[in-house]
Amino acid sequence: MATLGAELADVAAGHVAIALPIESRLSQQNGFLHAGVVVAALDSACGYAALTLMPADAEVLSVEFKVNLLAPAGGDSLLAEGEVVRAGRTLTVCRGDAYAEQDGERVHVATMLATMVRRRAG
Amino acid sequence: MATLGAELADVAAGHVAIALPIESRLSQQNGFLHAGVVVAALDSACGYAALTLMPADAEVLSVEFKVNLLAPAGGDSLLAEGEVVRAGRTLTVCRGDAYAEQDGERVHVATMLATMVRRRAG
Amino acid sequence: MATLGAELADVAAGHVAIALPIESRLSQQNGFLHAGVVVAALDSACGYAALTLMPADAEVLSVEFKVNLLAPAGGDSLLAEGEVVRAGRTLTVCRGDAYAEQDGERVHVATMLATMVRRRAG
Amino acid sequence: MATLGAELADVAAGHVAIALPIESRLSQQNGFLHAGVVVAALDSACGYAALTLMPADAEVLSVEFKVNLLAPAGGDSLLAEGEVVRAGRTLTVCRGDAYAEQDGERVHVATMLATMVRRRAG
Repeated sequence: MATLGAELADVAAGHVAIALPIESRLSQQNGFLHAGVVVAALDSACGYAALTLMPADAEVLSVEFKVNLLAPAGGDSLLAEGEVVRAGRTLTVCRGDAYAEQDGERVHVATMLATMVRRRAG
Repeated sequence: MATLGAELADVAAGHVAIALPIESRLSQQNGFLHAGVVVAALDSACGYAALTLMPADAEVLSVEFKVNLLAPAGGDSLLAEGEVVRAGRTLTVCRGDAYAEQDGERVHVATMLATMVRRRAG
Repeated sequence: MATLGAELADVAAGHVAIALPIESRLSQQNGFLHAGVVVAALDSACGYAALTLMPADAEVLSVEFKVNLLAPAGGDSLLAEGEVVRAGRTLTVCRGDAYAEQDGERVHVATMLATMVRRRAG
Repeated sequence: MATLGAELADVAAGHVAIALPIESRLSQQNGFLHAGVVVAALDSACGYAALTLMPADAEVLSVEFKVNLLAPAGGDSLLAEGEVVRAGRTLTVCRGDAYAEQDGERVHVATMLATMVRRRAG
């Protein structure tokens, strides 16, 4: 995420938001962010949201996720929000929503449902 | 849904709730509602939610859905809520959440993300 | 599944097929099997497929699944096949495919991708 | 995909394979390909597979997809295969499977189920 210029925009228990500039090098020919980048941002937001409810040394891995792509991600920046739906001992279910923002307007560009697994310490 | 004893608990633009008694004949040996019934209720709630934003003679079909099963559905009744995330000309994306209710307590038992297609008139 | 008249049509390591008559009481007004029944059959086939690769006393629960509904399930019977894609210590990923059969013809009616978790003994 | 060094490894009616070198700049600290890249490759393979069954000037967009991440994507190269499960007039359902390859060995790293929509000409 760091190489994408992403930064944490908000962190609370069970909720994380990641902000990402929509730069030309991440975009497709048409100026929209590539779906893979949107998905990676949502996946990260969901993973970090899961981590907020775990001990400091915990690690999580994505087991699976499903994404609906709702609209092209154009504009100035992308906001990817992750929220814990259910935190379990082994598995945590998260919901993610991504918004493209420009001039104070936001468009809902994608929604995700993800399952995270707490990784066993090495 | 009628054969399951389901009834509309709430209808608004883009949102529908279906209530369903948790009866023994729909339950598994352990007294919990079968996942297939929970999924059918969520699918119906999502489909009806999509219909609330369409002309009166429109029909929808489920293209696909994904469900995370969060907890066993025990108790007195199931509440399945469907909500439109994005309404398009052909495709509508909905989110569904099911809760098992007993004595005023509710447990989040499943969450769904679904894609509905507006059916061509026959 | 028993109450649906389902029976195991095939069992092998990592693969299970369930056959189900398409009866009027499980069908919608139009004579097609309700999507909830197709999904329940696929979910069961995937769960049993996961079990074939575990010790005899193991139990599995569905964590989540995603289904694409491809065609209406009409005809004489439904065949739901489950196959293990990856068997892990805790999580097993399965694929399911359902076919409606009539007079030797088969139509692919649904495809599923599911995650099963091995349940801790009570 | 071009910027990822991807190339078409195989094209047939309803089936496309994309090969991608696993380079350090696309990898995480641990040397494994980032999940976002694996997903983007699978999404592309599915989209191209859908296109093989359409007229030459057709375009497709991903409506949604679900991915199960099965194993870390390490090694020399990634092979992402897309296959049409059902081709419809508006919607095409595809399955994708990604394999990490090294020294002739292949590991199944991810499996996808995706819905593509044929885009209206501009």
